[in-house]
Amino acid sequence: MPDPADWSCPTPIGTRGEVVMGHGGGGRLTAELVAEVFQPALANDTLDRMADAAVVMAGGARLAMTTDAFVVRPLFFPGGDIGTLAVHGTINDLACAGATPLYLTAAFVIEEGMSMRDLARIAASMGAAARAAGVTVVAGDTKVVDRGRGDGVYITTAGVGLVRPDANVGPERAQVGDAVIVSGPIGQHGVAVMSVREGIEFGTPVVSDTAAVHQLVAALFDAGIDTHVLRDPTRGGVAGTLNEIADASGIGIVVDEPSVPVPDAVRSACALLGLDPYQVANEGRVIAFVSGADADRAVQVLRSTTGGAGATIIGRVVGDHAGMVVGRTAIGGTRIIDMPLGELLPRIC
Amino acid sequence: MPDPADWSCPTPIGTRGEVVMGHGGGGRLTAELVAEVFQPALANDTLDRMADAAVVMAGGARLAMTTDAFVVRPLFFPGGDIGTLAVHGTINDLACAGATPLYLTAAFVIEEGMSMRDLARIAASMGAAARAAGVTVVAGDTKVVDRGRGDGVYITTAGVGLVRPDANVGPERAQVGDAVIVSGPIGQHGVAVMSVREGIEFGTPVVSDTAAVHQLVAALFDAGIDTHVLRDPTRGGVAGTLNEIADASGIGIVVDEPSVPVPDAVRSACALLGLDPYQVANEGRVIAFVSGADADRAVQVLRSTTGGAGATIIGRVVGDHAGMVVGRTAIGGTRIIDMPLGELLPRIC
Repeated sequence: MPDPADWSCPTPIGTRGEVVMGHGGGGRLTAELVAEVFQPALANDTLDRMADAAVVMAGGARLAMTTDAFVVRPLFFPGGDIGTLAVHGTINDLACAGATPLYLTAAFVIEEGMSMRDLARIAASMGAAARAAGVTVVAGDTKVVDRGRGDGVYITTAGVGLVRPDANVGPERAQVGDAVIVSGPIGQHGVAVMSVREGIEFGTPVVSDTAAVHQLVAALFDAGIDTHVLRDPTRGGVAGTLNEIADASGIGIVVDEPSVPVPDAVRSACALLGLDPYQVANEGRVIAFVSGADADRAVQVLRSTTGGAGATIIGRVVGDHAGMVVGRTAIGGTRIIDMPLGELLPRIC
Repeated sequence: MPDPADWSCPTPIGTRGEVVMGHGGGGRLTAELVAEVFQPALANDTLDRMADAAVVMAGGARLAMTTDAFVVRPLFFPGGDIGTLAVHGTINDLACAGATPLYLTAAFVIEEGMSMRDLARIAASMGAAARAAGVTVVAGDTKVVDRGRGDGVYITTAGVGLVRPDANVGPERAQVGDAVIVSGPIGQHGVAVMSVREGIEFGTPVVSDTAAVHQLVAALFDAGIDTHVLRDPTRGGVAGTLNEIADASGIGIVVDEPSVPVPDAVRSACALLGLDPYQVANEGRVIAFVSGADADRAVQVLRSTTGGAGATIIGRVVGDHAGMVVGRTAIGGTRIIDMPLGELLPRIC
C-alpha cells in the first residue's frame, strides 16, 4: 500500500499533500480521497462496497445504515434549508439501498454567534421533513465551535432502515438491457442554491427539488418491478451517478439526451454559470435501473406517486463501452458523458 | 410553547438570541439549547428520554442508536486523537445503553488545506480503534469546507448496537440504596487536551483516558450484576453526569469525596487552570449505578477487566435531597456538587 502522505493529488491547481475543495465535490477527487485515505484505514467488505448505504445484519434484522454531512451555503434557499436537506438526504440513501427508512440521528456543529431564530427554523424544518416522511429523529448531539469557524451550522445525519425482503439492489447489479429511469426534472437543487449564493435572478425562479424519495422506491417494489439499481443523483449529479454505476457494474450506458428532463430555467442558469446540468446535484430525484421488460410499467408506477409525475426513461444499459456513459444527441451524434473531476458547485449539500 | 426566537439566553456574558460557546459545553446551557430549540421541533418519546443512546425496534431486533460530533482542538493530544475519540465516544454511548456495539458510520467535514498526512493518521487511528473494539465502520461521507472554516476536520460518528436481553438501564432507573461506581481515575482526558492546547507541561504528563468501555459493561452483565444506570462521564464530567442522573431519577446522590480517584497530576493541573476535576471530561470511563447488594462484586468484576483496574465505589443513592448531588469531604463536611453551567473546557471532544 502506498503511503498516503506521499500521494500526489492531481488537482487543477497543483496542490500537493493537502485537501482541496475538489475533494468534497463528489466527483473523481472525492473517490480518490476515499480510496487513498479512508479505505485503507477502515477497510472491510461492507465499506468497500461503496453503496449509498451499507446493508448489515443485527439481531436477525437486515438493516441499511448511512450517514451524510451537510455543509450547504447559504443555509436557506428556495424550496428548503440545510435541515430539510439533512433529513431528505439520509432518507434517500436508505431508500436507494432498498430499505424502509425508520430512524435518524442528527449532530449539529454550531458556530458561536449563530442566531437562535435561524437554528430554531432549521430544527423545525427537520422535524417537519421527518414527520412527513414517517421517520423519527431518535438521538442527537450539539457542539459549538468558535466564531469564524463553521458557517452557522453543519449538520450530520445518520439513518437506519429495514431492508425490504423483496429488495436486491446495488450499484454493481446493472445488466445489459436495463432501462435507466429518472423520477423527475434534474438540476434544480444545485441551481437553486447557486442562484441564491451568487445573487442571480432568473425570469422563472428555480426551486430546489429537495424531497424524500422512499415512497417512489416503495411503489416500485410494491408493484413487483424488477429493480436492479437505485441511486439518488446528488453530488456529481446524473453524470456522476451514471458513471459510478457503469464502473461498478462493468457495463456501458447510452443516454438518450433529448429524453433527459432538464427544465428550461435550469438550462439557462447552467449556461450562464458555465455548468453542465448533468453534473448538478439533485436532492429529490431517484435514478432506477429496471429490467427492460418492466420499464414502461415502472414509469407508470412512478408517475402515479407524489414527486414522480415527471418520471421518464432516459437511457439503457449496453454491452459495449463497459464503464463508460455515452450521450446520443437529438441529431444522432454521440459524446462521452464524463464524471465531474472535482468541485463544480462547492458546498451545495 | 414559547417562541424559541424570543428566548433570552442566560449566559454570563449576556448574549441574547445567539449561540455562545457555553451552549456546547455539555452543561446547563447545552441542556437548555436542546430543550428550547431541538426538542420542540423534533419531539418524540425516544428523543425525549435523553439517554446517551436511543433504544428502538427494527425488524424484531432491539437496537441502540447514537451520534456524536467531535470538534476537539488540537486534533492530536497525548493518548489519542480526534479519530480515536470519535470511535470510542460512540461505542461508549452504545455500551451505556446496555448494547453490544456493532456498526459505526463516520462523516468528515474537512477544511480545505488540511494535510493529507494528518488525515491519513486520523483515519488510521479510527481503523485501529474500531478493530480493537470489534466494531465495523460501514458507511461514511466526506465534505470539504473553505480554508479558514473548520479546524482541520470535524468528525461525526453514529453507531448501532444490539441491546442485550439482560440489560435494562437508563438515567431514570437509579434507586435509593444503589452504589455509584466509577471505572477508573477521572479528569485525564480534559486535562490532557487542555495541557497541549495551552502549552502547559507537568512533571508527570497527563495522558487522555480515551478508550472503549463496552467490555467493562459486558463484564457487569455477564456477571449478573443488577445494573440500573450506566453513563460515560464525558462533557460536564462526573459532576454533570451525576446531576443528570439525580434529576432523571428524582433521587439524591452522596459522593464520598476522598474515594473519588483524582490523579495527583490532574489535581495539580486543575488547580493551575482553575478547573474542578469533577467537571472535566473523561472518554474512557464509565459510571455504573448498581444495587447496593452487588456493589462489592461489581467492583471486583470491573477490576478484572482491561481498563477497569481502578474501579471504585464513590458514592450512593439516597432518598434525601432529590435531584441534588452532595459531596462529603474528608473531614465530614458537605457541599453541593453542581452541574457545570457552560463551557469550562471548550472543544474538548
